[in-house]
Amino acid sequence: MAETRSALWQDYTWPELQALAEAGAAVIVPVGAIEQHGPHLPVSVDSTCVYEVARHAAQAVTEFPVLVAPPVWWGVSPHHMGFAGTITLSTDTFIAVVSDICRSIGQHGFRRILILNGHGGNASVVNVIAQRLSEQKPPLWVAAATYFTMIAQDLQAIGESDFGGMSHACEMETSLMLALRPDLVHLDRAEDDMRGPWTSFFGWDMRVGGTVYYAYDMKRDTNQGVIGAPSLATTEKGQRILAAATTHVASFLREYQAMPV
Amino acid sequence: MAETRSALWQDYTWPELQALAEAGAAVIVPVGAIEQHGPHLPVSVDSTCVYEVARHAAQAVTEFPVLVAPPVWWGVSPHHMGFAGTITLSTDTFIAVVSDICRSIGQHGFRRILILNGHGGNASVVNVIAQRLSEQKPPLWVAAATYFTMIAQDLQAIGESDFGGMSHACEMETSLMLALRPDLVHLDRAEDDMRGPWTSFFGWDMRVGGTVYYAYDMKRDTNQGVIGAPSLATTEKGQRILAAATTHVASFLREYQAMPV
Amino acid sequence: MAETRSALWQDYTWPELQALAEAGAAVIVPVGAIEQHGPHLPVSVDSTCVYEVARHAAQAVTEFPVLVAPPVWWGVSPHHMGFAGTITLSTDTFIAVVSDICRSIGQHGFRRILILNGHGGNASVVNVIAQRLSEQKPPLWVAAATYFTMIAQDLQAIGESDFGGMSHACEMETSLMLALRPDLVHLDRAEDDMRGPWTSFFGWDMRVGGTVYYAYDMKRDTNQGVIGAPSLATTEKGQRILAAATTHVASFLREYQAMPV
Amino acid sequence: MAETRSALWQDYTWPELQALAEAGAAVIVPVGAIEQHGPHLPVSVDSTCVYEVARHAAQAVTEFPVLVAPPVWWGVSPHHMGFAGTITLSTDTFIAVVSDICRSIGQHGFRRILILNGHGGNASVVNVIAQRLSEQKPPLWVAAATYFTMIAQDLQAIGESDFGGMSHACEMETSLMLALRPDLVHLDRAEDDMRGPWTSFFGWDMRVGGTVYYAYDMKRDTNQGVIGAPSLATTEKGQRILAAATTHVASFLREYQAMPV
Amino acid sequence: MAETRSALWQDYTWPELQALAEAGAAVIVPVGAIEQHGPHLPVSVDSTCVYEVARHAAQAVTEFPVLVAPPVWWGVSPHHMGFAGTITLSTDTFIAVVSDICRSIGQHGFRRILILNGHGGNASVVNVIAQRLSEQKPPLWVAAATYFTMIAQDLQAIGESDFGGMSHACEMETSLMLALRPDLVHLDRAEDDMRGPWTSFFGWDMRVGGTVYYAYDMKRDTNQGVIGAPSLATTEKGQRILAAATTHVASFLREYQAMPV
Amino acid sequence: MAETRSALWQDYTWPELQALAEAGAAVIVPVGAIEQHGPHLPVSVDSTCVYEVARHAAQAVTEFPVLVAPPVWWGVSPHHMGFAGTITLSTDTFIAVVSDICRSIGQHGFRRILILNGHGGNASVVNVIAQRLSEQKPPLWVAAATYFTMIAQDLQAIGESDFGGMSHACEMETSLMLALRPDLVHLDRAEDDMRGPWTSFFGWDMRVGGTVYYAYDMKRDTNQGVIGAPSLATTEKGQRILAAATTHVASFLREYQAMPV
Repeated sequence: MAETRSALWQDYTWPELQALAEAGAAVIVPVGAIEQHGPHLPVSVDSTCVYEVARHAAQAVTEFPVLVAPPVWWGVSPHHMGFAGTITLSTDTFIAVVSDICRSIGQHGFRRILILNGHGGNASVVNVIAQRLSEQKPPLWVAAATYFTMIAQDLQAIGESDFGGMSHACEMETSLMLALRPDLVHLDRAEDDMRGPWTSFFGWDMRVGGTVYYAYDMKRDTNQGVIGAPSLATTEKGQRILAAATTHVASFLREYQAMPV
Repeated sequence: MAETRSALWQDYTWPELQALAEAGAAVIVPVGAIEQHGPHLPVSVDSTCVYEVARHAAQAVTEFPVLVAPPVWWGVSPHHMGFAGTITLSTDTFIAVVSDICRSIGQHGFRRILILNGHGGNASVVNVIAQRLSEQKPPLWVAAATYFTMIAQDLQAIGESDFGGMSHACEMETSLMLALRPDLVHLDRAEDDMRGPWTSFFGWDMRVGGTVYYAYDMKRDTNQGVIGAPSLATTEKGQRILAAATTHVASFLREYQAMPV
Repeated sequence: MAETRSALWQDYTWPELQALAEAGAAVIVPVGAIEQHGPHLPVSVDSTCVYEVARHAAQAVTEFPVLVAPPVWWGVSPHHMGFAGTITLSTDTFIAVVSDICRSIGQHGFRRILILNGHGGNASVVNVIAQRLSEQKPPLWVAAATYFTMIAQDLQAIGESDFGGMSHACEMETSLMLALRPDLVHLDRAEDDMRGPWTSFFGWDMRVGGTVYYAYDMKRDTNQGVIGAPSLATTEKGQRILAAATTHVASFLREYQAMPV
Repeated sequence: MAETRSALWQDYTWPELQALAEAGAAVIVPVGAIEQHGPHLPVSVDSTCVYEVARHAAQAVTEFPVLVAPPVWWGVSPHHMGFAGTITLSTDTFIAVVSDICRSIGQHGFRRILILNGHGGNASVVNVIAQRLSEQKPPLWVAAATYFTMIAQDLQAIGESDFGGMSHACEMETSLMLALRPDLVHLDRAEDDMRGPWTSFFGWDMRVGGTVYYAYDMKRDTNQGVIGAPSLATTEKGQRILAAATTHVASFLREYQAMPV
Repeated sequence: MAETRSALWQDYTWPELQALAEAGAAVIVPVGAIEQHGPHLPVSVDSTCVYEVARHAAQAVTEFPVLVAPPVWWGVSPHHMGFAGTITLSTDTFIAVVSDICRSIGQHGFRRILILNGHGGNASVVNVIAQRLSEQKPPLWVAAATYFTMIAQDLQAIGESDFGGMSHACEMETSLMLALRPDLVHLDRAEDDMRGPWTSFFGWDMRVGGTVYYAYDMKRDTNQGVIGAPSLATTEKGQRILAAATTHVASFLREYQAMPV
Repeated sequence: MAETRSALWQDYTWPELQALAEAGAAVIVPVGAIEQHGPHLPVSVDSTCVYEVARHAAQAVTEFPVLVAPPVWWGVSPHHMGFAGTITLSTDTFIAVVSDICRSIGQHGFRRILILNGHGGNASVVNVIAQRLSEQKPPLWVAAATYFTMIAQDLQAIGESDFGGMSHACEMETSLMLALRPDLVHLDRAEDDMRGPWTSFFGWDMRVGGTVYYAYDMKRDTNQGVIGAPSLATTEKGQRILAAATTHVASFLREYQAMPV
């Protein structure tokens, strides 16, 4: 496959994809969200970011081919439906669609599939999808990860905001969008919304996980759909975040490829 | 919304989408397939074509705003799974995901939703989706159509092949891809596969519908995943097809807008 | 099976049905509706008509045995629930029951099953049922058709009403019931209700199909549950309609029998 | 409704059924099976018998109108699929279809619905259907019964066979079919098959219930699909059985009508 | 397994349970309810009673090992939700959980499984569970019973109350709890609530079954969640009830063990 | 409720539970597993441990009443089914049963529900349950946590084994069982099984979380169902682990109680 240039599954013909399966290509299935991200960011943020991380990681791996499947645009976002533009799938529908995609890919002989998630509301669900796929007979083994969890330590180094500043439409996401799609960022409309979590057990910042899960309602609990400090966003931070995510995802893909399956 | 330039839902912020709902914007939900299209076309054909038709139609309507939602990449393609690269949703999953998308859009106040389909295997399913959404309480009323069925008469004028030449990865689809994504068309690998239908009651060509439905299996029933005459494809035909589809979809949107809901 | 007289599956013993399967019998599964049909027709119209068409077609074929399975009385009629007497199945229940029937028939070795539909609200659903049955492993291949779609051209010749006159409890259905069950037709209560469709894209008359699907609500959109011109109904038209449907269904069964499966 | 002669729901128009609901009509929903009944009886036995019991009971009640809904032909008969001709619904499908029918009837204002069952494999399921309908919000209250359980004492008086003689395609069912559809009974092919139950706790005869439920497989556990003594069947016994069932169902309907709902 | 003392599945290690399967152990799956039982009994009554019956029966059988699986605490109790403390599963959830338990047990090689039920609302459902498990491929054959139905004749001998006195939180259940958990019985708060059934066809007392099923609502139809005569409860009656249930369940297990499977 | 001594929901009558709801009681729903834990521990480990942690935490809180609901014995353990004794629920069944329990509790007016999990295979699923319950209308807000994740730092202080020593039937679980049920621990049969994870991204030890999820199969990937170092287990470590878990859960309950809901 020396002549392969694109990382995009959808650009290939069936004989080319058959050859890629035989060549041991890994496949990333990016899953994001169409979800309000405050008055200054488009609803595509989660999908755009995870898709670009996936594409960068796929290009960064040169030892074996890596394909990026068409992105799952919509995630589980019921808690954002109070703001216009959010398109949510129910948890059950999201499980079904991602599972069917993985099953199809696996059926064509691809043995290393990574569901790469870019939306907090999907984080536990993608793990459950991987588990459910292992329940079927014969089992399908896939990996699942949320890219911003993989770079929590990098975010600690990059972030300048206090705890709570990297949560949603925040210092982190606004920076990353500045690096990826500056034409869609309206920094002049950005407004910080910092508030600590209700209990010390809840996760509230991408830099630190929580130990108790609790759903919340963005319409009730925020002013304009923002949690964090978009005012601290910069293009340079976005580039560092993209680089960190690319590095970690690519590293995992290499270890995954070396693993027996 | 004078400054609105993009037709893409995902490019807007939530306050912008709220304003678009209040302005009476129509929304097209494009649904396609990731499905083998012979050795000469990428697996994205159905999704690429319907997305572009949707975008052109949205631009063609200037009387009121028309948005194009993120495309549903994958359709119901079990009969194509014998060829690598096909990613199929089960009928039930496809119904669930398109329904959830329509429900979310409807919940934000958009009153005119068109599910625009670009894949034969989805054609009856999108009608069923529209019907099922009318069953819920309160009902959600949406329209559903398959763009190539809307232009059957235009295709009769444009096509040069015999009956059976405009079916799959064929004179029609290859022409349209030449017009839209010539970089992904490998005409040198195209091979015609003409065969009449098993019974005179089955539909077998986009120019003429059938009156009896019967599923088939592409691996069993074709040589390389082609039904039709890709050798007759030209860019000019593709442009005429795109223009016809754009015109019909735009016309429908205008009539739909004038309808009481 | 020379002594076979009945076409009805339910009249036979299991050894007889085993012999019929081995003899290559085709099976028609009639699906209708229990649904209001205006003040002049019983709620059984769709089921009665499709059952009689099935029985006549089965008798018309003499080359091989054709059985008629017990009819599925109820269809998908949520849009008629505003009028008393309608018994609707949800789309999902309808899919389940017709699928289970086909699976049972197929399991006993019958290879040619035709789901014959007599209700507009079921038309896309029966296609989807056929498609879903081909998704299972191993696939079950069945044919699906709506009898009045098969005779659209005949109806153009028989009908005297303007466009919109052959839709529901109309010139066509009232004529057919006059031919089949005159004791249940109350012509003195019939009242025409002619109205054009909301858009030129919607199907509205059995003589002409539409290219955009849109659900509607009979209670909201009609006076008494009628769309069309029952005043033009005659017994003679009903007999011609029955003959046309019998001919087309029987022709299909013969072609189906000759097809490899 | 003085002129009402038919007990059949399907024979009425919507205004007539609306009037019947307002007049407090009770509705029987007959549920049977299409299931092998040995070499001497047609597969329709359970549906034919319960439908006729329902019709006779409806006619026997003169104090208020009683309607008989179109019969649910197919029941839960997986254990009979080893013999040709059996058409089984899965338990889940059977629950869905009977539930939807009851919901539709209830929605039109009928307050007394009786699911009347004629097949052993449905006996617990119809109870569960009644229970599940009471779970929905708002609850729908319906009654459920199996007609031959209601006449267990009568059968003790009528039956001449030993224990095990009235079970399936047996002294009881053959007698009843002789009374109802003698043209479909082939007594010359009848063969007794008497065997005691595996444990003293299992029900095995319509005259005595069991206290432990255990599913069984007719193909494995019988010679030709018969359990019991069809050789003892007579038309006169069938008439007595029909009379007993008619009396008990009619009595229940009268008590049901007097009950507050 | 000479050293085996416990009857509880959960107390064993996997090698021990593997040995028990190979030794032909039977398994009882107790299913009860967490459901209001009047002001004088805890909500655990049904689960406590059935669990203790199961344990006593397991100990009473010495010919082969009998295990008692962890109890299914919650049953189908929607009709009791009007009183605090009731925890109900939907019918569908209850079916799913009991089915999964039986499938797991069967997968480890145990061939004799008895679902032993202690709650009226579960009685038909456990039969349906056994039937549904026989529908899967390959089928799983399990037995199902409700312990108080097995001792109806014993209860006729033990009970002193009039018809209706042994129904819910009644003479029977209060006696059994006095024998099993006297610390949780508050006899001083007990209040009889005797009322005959609405129709003579409904079951209303554990001593006599009904022939028509009808759901009811405890909040609407009782004063304090009691149907029956707790005032007549005694410890001695409870001991006799426990002994009778133990005897019958053990007897069944012995017959079950002797049956071919 | 001054006289309240028990923490167990099931021990109370309905009037007592109604009073506890009005008094603002919190409710813990313990969820575990019946799952092989090597040759030295009973299959009840996960359920026993989480139930005891829940009971200790409930007793530790004296400011307001805390109830412990009947435990969900079985979790999602398909990957342990290769060893006898494991009883697994499918992911979907587990979601259904825990959801129904929470809904029932919430319906009686309890506003603070904590799903407390004790099994790794349930960890993401309980989060998803909490999220799905927030999707329903009206939403039900519940908290979800896995007790051993809450004490990861404590385990770092208590554990002596290398990385990989606290995973399954390990130093941690064996210690905790020694503290809770020494009668069920067979230390003489314990055998260490230390192996590093396949990739550095997978979680493999309770002291350190992973950032990529990957299902595994215990039968394929371990010798006897153990991952870790049971040889290092001591009763004293078990007591420290119990104390740490009790403290953290009780702390959370206090913060939860202070939170607006």
